[in-house]
Amino acid sequence: MGTTEDYECPRRVPVPPSKPFLKSLQTSLKETFFPDDPFKQFKNQPTSWKFLLGLQYFVPILEWAPRYTFDFFKADLIAGITIASLAVPQGISYASLASIPPIIGLYSSFVPPLIYAMLGSSRDLAVGTVAVGSLLISSMLGKEVSPTENPEQYVRLVFTATFFAGVFQASFGILRLGFIVDFLSHATIVGFMGGAATIVCLQQLKGMLGLVHFTHETDVVSVMSSVFGQIHQWRWESAVLGCCFLFFLLLTRYFSKRKSVFFWINAMAPLTSVILGSLLVYLTHAEKHGVQVIGHLKKGLNPLSTSELVFGSPHLMAAVKTGIIIGVIGLAEGIAVGRTFAMFKNYHIDGNKEMIAFGMMNIAGSCTSCYLTAGPFSRTAVNYNAGSRSAVSNIIMATAVMFTLLFLTPLFHYTPLVVLSSIIVSAMLGLLDYEAAIHLWKIDKFDFFICLGAYLGVVLGSVEIGLVIAITVSLLRILLFVARPRTIVLGNIPNTGIYRSMDQYPIAKTVPGILILQIDAPVYFANASYLRERISRWIYEEEDRLKSVGETSLHYVILDLSAVGSIDTSGISMFEEVGKNVDRKGLKLVLANPQSEVMKKLHKSKLIDTIGQEWIHLTVGEAVAACNFMLYTCKPDPVVVDYNAQDNNV
Amino acid sequence: MGTTEDYECPRRVPVPPSKPFLKSLQTSLKETFFPDDPFKQFKNQPTSWKFLLGLQYFVPILEWAPRYTFDFFKADLIAGITIASLAVPQGISYASLASIPPIIGLYSSFVPPLIYAMLGSSRDLAVGTVAVGSLLISSMLGKEVSPTENPEQYVRLVFTATFFAGVFQASFGILRLGFIVDFLSHATIVGFMGGAATIVCLQQLKGMLGLVHFTHETDVVSVMSSVFGQIHQWRWESAVLGCCFLFFLLLTRYFSKRKSVFFWINAMAPLTSVILGSLLVYLTHAEKHGVQVIGHLKKGLNPLSTSELVFGSPHLMAAVKTGIIIGVIGLAEGIAVGRTFAMFKNYHIDGNKEMIAFGMMNIAGSCTSCYLTAGPFSRTAVNYNAGSRSAVSNIIMATAVMFTLLFLTPLFHYTPLVVLSSIIVSAMLGLLDYEAAIHLWKIDKFDFFICLGAYLGVVLGSVEIGLVIAITVSLLRILLFVARPRTIVLGNIPNTGIYRSMDQYPIAKTVPGILILQIDAPVYFANASYLRERISRWIYEEEDRLKSVGETSLHYVILDLSAVGSIDTSGISMFEEVGKNVDRKGLKLVLANPQSEVMKKLHKSKLIDTIGQEWIHLTVGEAVAACNFMLYTCKPDPVVVDYNAQDNNV
Repeated sequence: MGTTEDYECPRRVPVPPSKPFLKSLQTSLKETFFPDDPFKQFKNQPTSWKFLLGLQYFVPILEWAPRYTFDFFKADLIAGITIASLAVPQGISYASLASIPPIIGLYSSFVPPLIYAMLGSSRDLAVGTVAVGSLLISSMLGKEVSPTENPEQYVRLVFTATFFAGVFQASFGILRLGFIVDFLSHATIVGFMGGAATIVCLQQLKGMLGLVHFTHETDVVSVMSSVFGQIHQWRWESAVLGCCFLFFLLLTRYFSKRKSVFFWINAMAPLTSVILGSLLVYLTHAEKHGVQVIGHLKKGLNPLSTSELVFGSPHLMAAVKTGIIIGVIGLAEGIAVGRTFAMFKNYHIDGNKEMIAFGMMNIAGSCTSCYLTAGPFSRTAVNYNAGSRSAVSNIIMATAVMFTLLFLTPLFHYTPLVVLSSIIVSAMLGLLDYEAAIHLWKIDKFDFFICLGAYLGVVLGSVEIGLVIAITVSLLRILLFVARPRTIVLGNIPNTGIYRSMDQYPIAKTVPGILILQIDAPVYFANASYLRERISRWIYEEEDRLKSVGETSLHYVILDLSAVGSIDTSGISMFEEVGKNVDRKGLKLVLANPQSEVMKKLHKSKLIDTIGQEWIHLTVGEAVAACNFMLYTCKPDPVVVDYNAQDNNV
Repeated sequence: MGTTEDYECPRRVPVPPSKPFLKSLQTSLKETFFPDDPFKQFKNQPTSWKFLLGLQYFVPILEWAPRYTFDFFKADLIAGITIASLAVPQGISYASLASIPPIIGLYSSFVPPLIYAMLGSSRDLAVGTVAVGSLLISSMLGKEVSPTENPEQYVRLVFTATFFAGVFQASFGILRLGFIVDFLSHATIVGFMGGAATIVCLQQLKGMLGLVHFTHETDVVSVMSSVFGQIHQWRWESAVLGCCFLFFLLLTRYFSKRKSVFFWINAMAPLTSVILGSLLVYLTHAEKHGVQVIGHLKKGLNPLSTSELVFGSPHLMAAVKTGIIIGVIGLAEGIAVGRTFAMFKNYHIDGNKEMIAFGMMNIAGSCTSCYLTAGPFSRTAVNYNAGSRSAVSNIIMATAVMFTLLFLTPLFHYTPLVVLSSIIVSAMLGLLDYEAAIHLWKIDKFDFFICLGAYLGVVLGSVEIGLVIAITVSLLRILLFVARPRTIVLGNIPNTGIYRSMDQYPIAKTVPGILILQIDAPVYFANASYLRERISRWIYEEEDRLKSVGETSLHYVILDLSAVGSIDTSGISMFEEVGKNVDRKGLKLVLANPQSEVMKKLHKSKLIDTIGQEWIHLTVGEAVAACNFMLYTCKPDPVVVDYNAQDNNV
């Protein structure tokens, strides 16, 4: 190819047969909302079997329970007890982060894990309360109702927000809107989580230093000025205790990363800290010397809270707004965590099914005195490393928490708050994923700046500002990507029929008299007018260049449409205008390798007749051959010899 | 290709040399904000010449005025007078649409055209007030300040909104944010304009039927119930007069479309109607029998209105909001109109420069008692058809309007409002572009529904609801496009080395043991997890299919990345995970034709070493050849013979 002899048998690009509108609508709806084809297994099955399969689809435990063995149970028992030892102190700590009574944190580790065990499709996810969600609750709802002045109404609002989070999560799943979560990019999540972890750590300065009055703002400036504005109020007893425990927790984590033998020590460290701290306070009566303790915890299981959900209150909109935000954040973290661990074990997580499971677990939770639960990374990692085999480990954890609620709550009376702060700080330091940020900087600077923007937004502004920045920048990035697709000039790789980017392959050579452009994205209204201008500029620049070096002038413009996967009416108009423009300059527009959708629309808009079916080729090579044939064979010209000579020399 | 003999000299895909961060940032900023390369002409020029070129760049009249000839002037004179005959009645009519005194409509056809003639780059655009903008002003600002109860404050608010519209327009241009306008797709504009035209026509029922009381709502239900709720108030004199003039106007338009001889009659028809109507009222004293007339118009040129701009009022936010919306709508219409006519005459319109010109013209207008002006389609079409050669026709029009303002305003005293209504209705019917809607339906059903949504939103809700629907649906469409890119299975076209979509080319055949997938869009965070799942599903389905027909099992998965123009970190992680996934199934991942950005990021993330540089090929054909070489040559297998036989049979 590249020489005229090759121009023998041009292969036609077929116009695909037009499908009825309803059928193509059905296909595209299916591709959009059911890309995973969940109906696959139902095909050609008897009705009763279909019903069973459907039930198994929505309640996965029915599917795997029959295959469950005693060996699995032994593994799950160990993993379940391990994560319960984490769930109890973390539950209490995160509840204080959400400004709600600590007992609700324990309640939240009882009902939701049971629901998830039945409905969830992950084998490794450990359900529980999450730090970022807790912080978001206190910062968004705390503005509406003060948790200190009106604690009962505040708790009701928290339950209501949890209920709405569940409703949104479940409806995203049912409506198959799983892709909403995809619009939070990895970079924004890294930045946002890091920022949230930073401000959560800063908030712990209150507990660590034993301060009584503390700012309600979360930004670093307010917190720092609040902390250093009351230096004389710092309680050294509290600070020393806190630092010791923090050191202990960080040390066990450090060693567990080096040697896997230390894994159990690390997993048990929070519970050990709580026990040691409580004993220490009980023996030294430190609660009378400035060390704050949890105090009385009610015995007994979760009370029903259906009557506490307030739908008529003036704060309903705040509850709905908080619900949607914490719901989406919970899903984003939970699904990402679930997928990560599913990949290690090579099984599949269905995002939409997970959403329904998360939603149901939060709806049920909000009715049984639980607040927002999701799949925290740290606990899931412990679960995985402790050897969990199925969601039964969540059931074991819930049973252990139930046991705690029924019999052990008095033991937490003397647990110092400062130990809880240390547990939170040590967990949060794991969320400060600076390695991921460095990775982003190395691979994609723009992603790094999105990450940094989200981080700084959270740290300097508030959690919501950070979130808004992250989402806006992510969306702007998509829109910019879409609005500015790349166009590439192609050249011939010598002695082949292959045409590739002149920039990427320095050996590629231009073909005299022909400009070959590749359009590198689907053509929509958002980029059509840019492409029109950019193509004109390429033509203009090429003509200029040819004039300046005194080469043969331009005769053909070949557009390689291999990468144009779809097109809308604006895109078709764009090609129409480019065609007219090129015509007016005395050039000829040639298309190479249009895909079926492009061909279909070219055909429907009659543009195919304007361009001429004979000017639409299967490959760039064939398009070039056809142009050369017209240039040198149809109207013989001395240049032919030059050209061939040149081609062979390269 | 396709057989093992071809596998001789694999061409490497080079990793592009890494550019310094600042340089690549500069390149990408330039591509994003200066795609038209406006600095091109300044290169290698002396400083004084650069200054002159810069001045000419911002004030295009300096560039074309020296070349202006008397022949041009003769053409522009005729065109200018023609559009002035349209500008006077339209100016008065649209002012009533905006609920402001009619004289402001005349003022607005004097100063802004002069500014545009100096700064604009279109030779055909006729500047003037626009119906949709006028309607938006009255519907958005009318809610804040009642134009009937507090007319002075209302007018001040209109000037302020115009000022902000100008500021936004100019700053979009200066900040090179021209692409904002591109996010209003053609389909949304057709629907929105059609809807606006419909409700403008409905509003004219007030004038046509001589009604005094009328609803402030614009939706079709309110207007119809208002009209039919007061049947006994209808004035038949007014209605008959209106219908006669409407019939006359429509008739001239109908004929002008058939025969170009009637063009002048059509162009002059509005002015003729005004003169005839005024004479009729004057002679029959119809103003005393229920035919409303314009009444007294002040003589004299535009008074300054800088002191009327209110920045401290409580309605400032409404003015800013109205300003940004009417500014963007004005730009969208104006630039689209300018580009359309520029294409007819084969010259180029610089979108960002046009935005600055529009902005300056509205800022200057708001200081000289003018309200929003843009480039109305109807007037520009008349200008073009009347043979305008340059923006001088706008100057002629402005001069004619000046003459009218100085001497002729008393003549409009007896002009019946019903004639103005007929002029508006006949102009609006041209905006009801049902042909475009049919075209959309034929080519792209989805675009048609966007158009219909915008239309129904405007007609049944309000202008703002329609606009919000249109923009939201357009953005959702982009996001859906981005979130659900297409993946295509490729097959070999027999007797060639070409691989194409199996769906599009029924003759294409699968290659045994190899699955070839083409990814049809850039890979971002928004589609990375979808792609991961979709690729797994393709592999799963292919394995299933092979099992069911008892063919050789799958050994290689080739991803054709020709269409992946860019990628972010999430995309890279996606490939990493797909690689691991494929590995775990005992398959091998092979990449074909990655572009330079993809190669760069594969290299930086070290993924290139995981996949193996030797598994990255220049073309799908070479990748297939390499796979076949490994399959049949390295570990000889009886299948080889089968395969080759099969290949030759096809």
